[in-house]
Amino acid sequence: MSDAQLASRVTGSVHIIGAGLLGSSIGLALRAKGTAVTIEDISEAAAALAIDYGAGSALQPGQQPDLVVVATPPDQAADVIAAALVRFPQAIVTDVTSVKWQPLKQLQQRGIDLTRYVGSHPMAGREKGGTIMARADLFVGRPWVICRDADTPALALALVEAVALEVGAVPMEWQPDEHDSAVAAVSHLPQVVASLLAAQLLSVKSDYLGLAGGGLRDTTRIAASDPRLWIQILTANSEPVAELLERLGADIADFAAALRDPAAHGSRTKIAQLLAAGNAGLERVPGKHGSSRSFATLNVIIADERGQLAQLFSDLDELEINMEDFRLEHSPGAAIGFAEISVLPEAEERALAALSKRGWRIV
Amino acid sequence: MSDAQLASRVTGSVHIIGAGLLGSSIGLALRAKGTAVTIEDISEAAAALAIDYGAGSALQPGQQPDLVVVATPPDQAADVIAAALVRFPQAIVTDVTSVKWQPLKQLQQRGIDLTRYVGSHPMAGREKGGTIMARADLFVGRPWVICRDADTPALALALVEAVALEVGAVPMEWQPDEHDSAVAAVSHLPQVVASLLAAQLLSVKSDYLGLAGGGLRDTTRIAASDPRLWIQILTANSEPVAELLERLGADIADFAAALRDPAAHGSRTKIAQLLAAGNAGLERVPGKHGSSRSFATLNVIIADERGQLAQLFSDLDELEINMEDFRLEHSPGAAIGFAEISVLPEAEERALAALSKRGWRIV
Repeated sequence: MSDAQLASRVTGSVHIIGAGLLGSSIGLALRAKGTAVTIEDISEAAAALAIDYGAGSALQPGQQPDLVVVATPPDQAADVIAAALVRFPQAIVTDVTSVKWQPLKQLQQRGIDLTRYVGSHPMAGREKGGTIMARADLFVGRPWVICRDADTPALALALVEAVALEVGAVPMEWQPDEHDSAVAAVSHLPQVVASLLAAQLLSVKSDYLGLAGGGLRDTTRIAASDPRLWIQILTANSEPVAELLERLGADIADFAAALRDPAAHGSRTKIAQLLAAGNAGLERVPGKHGSSRSFATLNVIIADERGQLAQLFSDLDELEINMEDFRLEHSPGAAIGFAEISVLPEAEERALAALSKRGWRIV
Repeated sequence: MSDAQLASRVTGSVHIIGAGLLGSSIGLALRAKGTAVTIEDISEAAAALAIDYGAGSALQPGQQPDLVVVATPPDQAADVIAAALVRFPQAIVTDVTSVKWQPLKQLQQRGIDLTRYVGSHPMAGREKGGTIMARADLFVGRPWVICRDADTPALALALVEAVALEVGAVPMEWQPDEHDSAVAAVSHLPQVVASLLAAQLLSVKSDYLGLAGGGLRDTTRIAASDPRLWIQILTANSEPVAELLERLGADIADFAAALRDPAAHGSRTKIAQLLAAGNAGLERVPGKHGSSRSFATLNVIIADERGQLAQLFSDLDELEINMEDFRLEHSPGAAIGFAEISVLPEAEERALAALSKRGWRIV
């Protein structure tokens, strides 16, 4: 099947079950690409809102979609997937549940034929759910994990990949247990930590909270997430999350003990080591193109004049300096700004010399 | 003294000792209001950069400022404050150290006359320090805590308040010990939690980290902070921080135990209660939706091709769109990036229309 045929097949008939944040966002994103989408929800009000919002139209009696996307809360996923395989006997069925191993195990235990089922998980979300938080660009540039097994037909995989690509995501294949271990670390652990950190604020004097700034706001932002959803996710992935929490708890206990007696031998070393480990851990989170390698950074002084940045980028192009990342630091009150340019470490020396030669000041 | 007289007195002579993030930002902000500022640093290179950056000029021999702002790391603060009271015998001296009780106690133990000293702490910062991170708008809308005592002359208090107001901050009076308890909860605890959470990433497979999204990024952003600075802050405020960490540790242990046996009586209730407590704690943080910078943001899609950014900046110049800030966002593996352009709200509509007309896709 050619790409065009595949795209037209996807375009023809995608049915979404569950009109929350993810289901509605998939609907919006596919329709923005001209795909016809139908959508339903156990709540008629939610379905009507999603339809009004432009996330899809109502499924007509007898209509048979090619692909069904199950976007329900995790504890209903297995039931809804099983029912969809019966309701839509020609369709490929996928789901977008945040955990992949437990729902698959539940389906396998029912002894039903799962040939037409492919689990998936788009790594996208917001701390507030629901139809009205939906965005067509929610998936742009985000990984979309697909868990196939040996029996998955090529067409099933291709359809889910095509949907992921249509909405701007990056499809990637994972094993269900590896996926669950990964999200335990990068998604579930941060969620629990943010929630428990925010929970400490209940016993803080309200005057004190008036001093809060961006650090507290960022570390606790996702504590706004819905407990009804997260209790399902966390209990469906409980062992890996518990293990990570226990390790974090041990580090917190060590840190607190060192602070209780900062003059004791080794206390300052312990504190410094743990803070430095935080720096190093953060450095491992990849930036551009999935690479975890660290880039060299050049800070170029930019005069606050029209045309300076255009000149800099034109010089970078002419000098064939590949920029991996870029940030502008410009203070409204300052006479100059700094362009922070990230390049591969091996390109740093040449970039520094070439830019300096063209008169750029680098600090 | 009238407001105008006071302002002109402040305008006349502020000397900043320490040309890091806070010192340079105060200099930039005061100079943006027309105030003459002098600045020095123990590092001559840092002082020269701050002067180039527009944060102040060099102090001339014999020059006597009205107000001295000590903006050194915490462990040097007491020494530098004591020296400044001797060097500038007519000046009021303040500091901007993140802890207030320990430096005051150290100064009192030296038996020196502290009548001309008023401690203060602007609640502003960034995860990366240094002169080049300085911004004139760093303090806009942020609390600036001032710790006076019964002996503080009205003029001293008025001068520090005037500086706080000049840079756009909100001056407020606190007792040193209350201040330190407050920042333990809203600043020091989140810092340790972010650092220890990021430290866990050291033992996570690098493949897994490719799935990281905004939740992990926000919860760990401040883990990039400088350990050399934070070991000083945390050991100077160790008891309140240790107590909060121990409480958080107890909640983490409870949560992990419930996850280890989610089917046990009470486990799901415990998990739900702690997640809901996170919601409730977050609700108590005032202005949680508020940002002190009120720019409109346009996300322009940038293809990952040479010349795209140069073209964008050249278009921005030609269209006379004034950019207040700029960030480039790349997602792992994505073929596109987003250029996040901040403009004044009143310029948003015209910028959107003009850029779209030139073929830029804005999401």
